[in-house]
Amino acid sequence: MTADLPDFSQGAAFVEGRYVQASEARLSILDWGFTRSDVTYDVVHVRDGGFFRLDDHLDRFERSLAACRLTPPHSRAEIAAILERCVALSGLRDAYVAMVCTRGRPRIFGSRRPADCENLFTAYAIPWIDVIPLDVQARGAHLHVASVPRIAAASIDPTVKNYHWGDLTRGLFEAHDAGADTAVLLDSDGFVTEGPGFNVFMVRDGEVLTPDRGALEGITRRSVLDLCAIIGLPARIAPLRHEDLLQADEVFCTTTAGGVMPVARVDGHIMNNDAPGPVSLRLKALYWQKHAEGWHRTEVNYAAAKTTTAA
Amino acid sequence: MTADLPDFSQGAAFVEGRYVQASEARLSILDWGFTRSDVTYDVVHVRDGGFFRLDDHLDRFERSLAACRLTPPHSRAEIAAILERCVALSGLRDAYVAMVCTRGRPRIFGSRRPADCENLFTAYAIPWIDVIPLDVQARGAHLHVASVPRIAAASIDPTVKNYHWGDLTRGLFEAHDAGADTAVLLDSDGFVTEGPGFNVFMVRDGEVLTPDRGALEGITRRSVLDLCAIIGLPARIAPLRHEDLLQADEVFCTTTAGGVMPVARVDGHIMNNDAPGPVSLRLKALYWQKHAEGWHRTEVNYAAAKTTTAA
Repeated sequence: MTADLPDFSQGAAFVEGRYVQASEARLSILDWGFTRSDVTYDVVHVRDGGFFRLDDHLDRFERSLAACRLTPPHSRAEIAAILERCVALSGLRDAYVAMVCTRGRPRIFGSRRPADCENLFTAYAIPWIDVIPLDVQARGAHLHVASVPRIAAASIDPTVKNYHWGDLTRGLFEAHDAGADTAVLLDSDGFVTEGPGFNVFMVRDGEVLTPDRGALEGITRRSVLDLCAIIGLPARIAPLRHEDLLQADEVFCTTTAGGVMPVARVDGHIMNNDAPGPVSLRLKALYWQKHAEGWHRTEVNYAAAKTTTAA
Repeated sequence: MTADLPDFSQGAAFVEGRYVQASEARLSILDWGFTRSDVTYDVVHVRDGGFFRLDDHLDRFERSLAACRLTPPHSRAEIAAILERCVALSGLRDAYVAMVCTRGRPRIFGSRRPADCENLFTAYAIPWIDVIPLDVQARGAHLHVASVPRIAAASIDPTVKNYHWGDLTRGLFEAHDAGADTAVLLDSDGFVTEGPGFNVFMVRDGEVLTPDRGALEGITRRSVLDLCAIIGLPARIAPLRHEDLLQADEVFCTTTAGGVMPVARVDGHIMNNDAPGPVSLRLKALYWQKHAEGWHRTEVNYAAAKTTTAA
């Protein structure tokens, strides 16, 4: 390591045009990305030195940016290069890699018009995080169905990745108070939506089901649907009610930061002798097996990316 | 001014225990106050060298903190002293003064439990901002009734001050696209709630009315209700429908950052010959007159606060 390079092993970030340690990466407290949560983002993971479905994450990020009328000061190719350089600087083989665009601050002091703002792009690569810890995944997570309803899609579009997590945070507190690991939220009509940072699936009579509303169109969710097609498991996006979840044969959660995460309990409902179910375990194993085979993989060029990327 | 003190004239902030220029005040991009909008705040104003209703703002901030299960590392008295010092350092006689508590980051890397986080307190004083510019207030603002519904109170409690502004931002874009100055949002049942950063009032047959739902319990809103009582104007918190707003004799908005702000148009509905109405103007004048008389005033001790406060 060069003497004047900081230690990026706990994560590297790109902020205001510079690469810094992730722990040092800061945003102005006056950025509307903070004071109005006027921001969109995406998270892609790196596993064993390769991005997974990088293009799909960049596609979704571009759709989110358009929906929010945000324009980062970098092209898609530049963003991809910045993400790769963050990973390369960190040296991490398994990483959680975020791209974030905030509204920024108005060019004219005192303006309250979003269109007057200078949008900012931030990115970072930090060590891999499992949304549900590995030991909890192994025994099967305990889900709590929260009483707080998910923010309605008419107010905040859940398919545009956002930081409006107040309802999810309240759900998490409820879950932890109840001794559960994490929460799943219903919409105001009682339909299952998603949890804090993950999509939800259930298995019923051999069919794999995931909610058709109130949820992010997760890339891992899509991967699971793809895997079901590959191995001939019937799978469907469908309206799922609270009762459906409580009567499921199996439940599992999916997220970029954790993959396929089996559930053993939903409130009082105990599944598979209080353990991960066979379909969940099969999909989880296949998900990582496909990673090892190079499915949707974009190699990180650690040596080159450290030095050749602009900025 | 001491040679080694920075120029605080554009604002002073208290961040991570230090006083810095507001433009330099930064928050970690990993703070859940940003990545989950897991934060509450309050804003008090300083007019002509005195805080207005400081205790009421501190009371509300404490209620918001409790509702969010946030615990800043400072007592109420310390927070008041920090706010005063921010104002004193800036030297601003008219200021917008914010107190902010974020969830912070987990003490244990990778934890997803809010209770594992170290909460952070941030504050800043910046030059006075009018939510609706003074020239627009003078001619009467043009309000647009947005099509996007306000986030439901069951999901995010609007009486706990929060940065979940995605719906308000969409409403603002709609308003600006329609050539209006700002927006007002309805709830999903068609009742009037609030706008981006302000409460809404209407005057009908000599009575002053403000919505009973979906809105912050604004301190300026309370001041207006107090003023109505003082001068014997009938005033009431009531359910107000979209149609009520369109048939009002007068409409005005209230906020800490602007006071009483008259409206001349709501969509196609033009009031008072396209100008601020008499009741709105009377309340606006009285609001500032009461300020000048020292109503609810807490003097800022500029000389002492610069030097005597700890930290």
